[in-house]
Amino acid sequence: MKRSIQQTFSVPFKYTVHFSENVFKKENPLFAEVIGQHQQSKVYFVVDNGVVAKHPDLLNEIRAYAQAHKACLVLCADPLVVPGGEEVKNTKKYVDQILEACNANGIDRHSFIVAIGGGAVLDMAGFASAIAHRGIRHIRIPTTVLAQNDSGIGVKNSINVYGKKNFLGTFAPPFAVINDNTFLPTLEDRDWRSGISEAVKVALIKDASFFQWMEASVEGLREREIPPMEELIYRCAKMHMDHISGGDPFEMGSSRPLDFGHWAAHKLEQLTDYRLRHGEAVAIGIALDATYSYLKKMISYSALHRIISLFQQLGFVVHIPELSQKHLLSDGLEEFREHLGGELTIMLLSDIGKGVEVHQMDTDLILLAAEHLRDFEEGKFELNT
Amino acid sequence: MKRSIQQTFSVPFKYTVHFSENVFKKENPLFAEVIGQHQQSKVYFVVDNGVVAKHPDLLNEIRAYAQAHKACLVLCADPLVVPGGEEVKNTKKYVDQILEACNANGIDRHSFIVAIGGGAVLDMAGFASAIAHRGIRHIRIPTTVLAQNDSGIGVKNSINVYGKKNFLGTFAPPFAVINDNTFLPTLEDRDWRSGISEAVKVALIKDASFFQWMEASVEGLREREIPPMEELIYRCAKMHMDHISGGDPFEMGSSRPLDFGHWAAHKLEQLTDYRLRHGEAVAIGIALDATYSYLKKMISYSALHRIISLFQQLGFVVHIPELSQKHLLSDGLEEFREHLGGELTIMLLSDIGKGVEVHQMDTDLILLAAEHLRDFEEGKFELNT
Repeated sequence: MKRSIQQTFSVPFKYTVHFSENVFKKENPLFAEVIGQHQQSKVYFVVDNGVVAKHPDLLNEIRAYAQAHKACLVLCADPLVVPGGEEVKNTKKYVDQILEACNANGIDRHSFIVAIGGGAVLDMAGFASAIAHRGIRHIRIPTTVLAQNDSGIGVKNSINVYGKKNFLGTFAPPFAVINDNTFLPTLEDRDWRSGISEAVKVALIKDASFFQWMEASVEGLREREIPPMEELIYRCAKMHMDHISGGDPFEMGSSRPLDFGHWAAHKLEQLTDYRLRHGEAVAIGIALDATYSYLKKMISYSALHRIISLFQQLGFVVHIPELSQKHLLSDGLEEFREHLGGELTIMLLSDIGKGVEVHQMDTDLILLAAEHLRDFEEGKFELNT
Repeated sequence: MKRSIQQTFSVPFKYTVHFSENVFKKENPLFAEVIGQHQQSKVYFVVDNGVVAKHPDLLNEIRAYAQAHKACLVLCADPLVVPGGEEVKNTKKYVDQILEACNANGIDRHSFIVAIGGGAVLDMAGFASAIAHRGIRHIRIPTTVLAQNDSGIGVKNSINVYGKKNFLGTFAPPFAVINDNTFLPTLEDRDWRSGISEAVKVALIKDASFFQWMEASVEGLREREIPPMEELIYRCAKMHMDHISGGDPFEMGSSRPLDFGHWAAHKLEQLTDYRLRHGEAVAIGIALDATYSYLKKMISYSALHRIISLFQQLGFVVHIPELSQKHLLSDGLEEFREHLGGELTIMLLSDIGKGVEVHQMDTDLILLAAEHLRDFEEGKFELNT
């Protein structure tokens, strides 16, 4: 008997990205409001050790906050402090520690796992939260520019396995995100700067006026002024979230994530054993694909010059020696294709503010672009093409 | 600056449950059609060793099928044969073997992982598929009654960790499901019977006419006739899928999965080290909660008698000694609550075809129900209440 049953349904997802400050000062009701007031929920914190080092009172503030708001939340175990940066994603160890805590403390689907830290810590804790009991409510408190404007506000989580970035992970929208600007002033310069490259990315492929705004705000951004950085984070976060909700949030079809410049960036992070920050690698990856776009006569020299200059004024390096290793970059293209699956799709530029997709790249031309970047890095801007 | 961005989107999911026979005979185009004809896709098979034992030609048929349909599919590695039954879920080993195969063979988000087997193998392979590259297309070919009418057609996957059933898992709809009735005649009696208890479950809580149909068809079902079993599988699968799409597919709110009788069933499986099949445990769990419903004066004695009689005519046992261990059953209630999260919610019956939810159970009354079941098991049907 040949028959079939067609299953069709839509799953609605909803979460809010809040912008606040001093989230764990007792007087700030936001976190307790996000948890919800109707009953006492178990909350488990996972905190980036880099954040604890810069904010030594944070763990005590969290304990005091929980005490002050015990009508709606209880810390079911002491916060788990984990390494920041890619190290925390390069092993299953920390995921297992969170899962063990879920088991030991009866953390269930109505409890909360709250992660405070950079994108790597959020990715790792998000993955553990997504697979325990098929998904525990997960609140993200991103502390870096990159996490606040990009990686921490989206729907993905992951860890790295077999030397492949984000090999394991899921799509799992957070319960809520809280961007607390209190964490921005204590960032290292590298982390302050890193996150800006994702804003350059969305501006370049989607919004020329945002790119112009960054050119005009470059001094304030470089000098670490908070107001322009808040504006940059808000605008970038908004565009990133609009892209997710307007497209294919779980990337099931052919629509693409916002990954301009990312194919080379992923490989460069791996080649440098993650000494290069993600945002630093993305800046180089964007510079590479912008130069390639120029060599393909898709953008003008003046557009390319504006892009490279903005990165350089912000203090980014646009070339490292690893960029000129031919076979490693072609591996990078293939790994990028494999990770997203199906046909290779790379975004290039047809103008500032306008991304365009291509399905193949010429490796000789990529190497030529890399050579130009080496010249740019040395301050030489005459192109011999 | 206090502001927020609200993110809202819906993710549409669609998959078909096909009913067919001899799926890997070259002449049957269904599997190739499901994979899709436009390009050659990588396919990786994970097969239950119990199925291979009963169908020794299956692996060769799969290889020949791939060869005959190489325009649309290629086996990227030899099929992985894994133990059937709960054993395959009680370790991370098999998940890791699949993940390693994904890595070694470049299995990407446009490739397919096909699992053939009972519910446990599908759960395990589905979990691996869901987390590799944030989700590889997963086709399920359930081979048992239970998997064809219930566990294999839904949106959940899982493995057991820390001695807790389904502790790790995700919600991840399959790419497609193919129910092949060729696997039914070779099932052991226990597996043939086991899956019927999930049909009794949906009938009891949702559809009195389906329950009556089972009473009328009990002889054919017991004597292993294929037509009534196909009908049972189809009706049960349809009701199960309607429940998923009509409710809260990812169980994010308070609506419940179809888990009547399951709180005790989960615990009994664990207490017997999974010697009890899931469906056998569910039969006992349903009998327990039906008897409890009677003791609570929610259903009549005649309704209870019909339920117990149907199970007994089908060859189910309705009592095992573990059922009378008080503290173990109360642990079971708590673990069930923890797994689903939030307040305890248990479904009981207010009539045949009508489930009703309660939020607490009286452990003394559960023990009394268990004592009655022991009497029923011994053929004594006079209740001294």
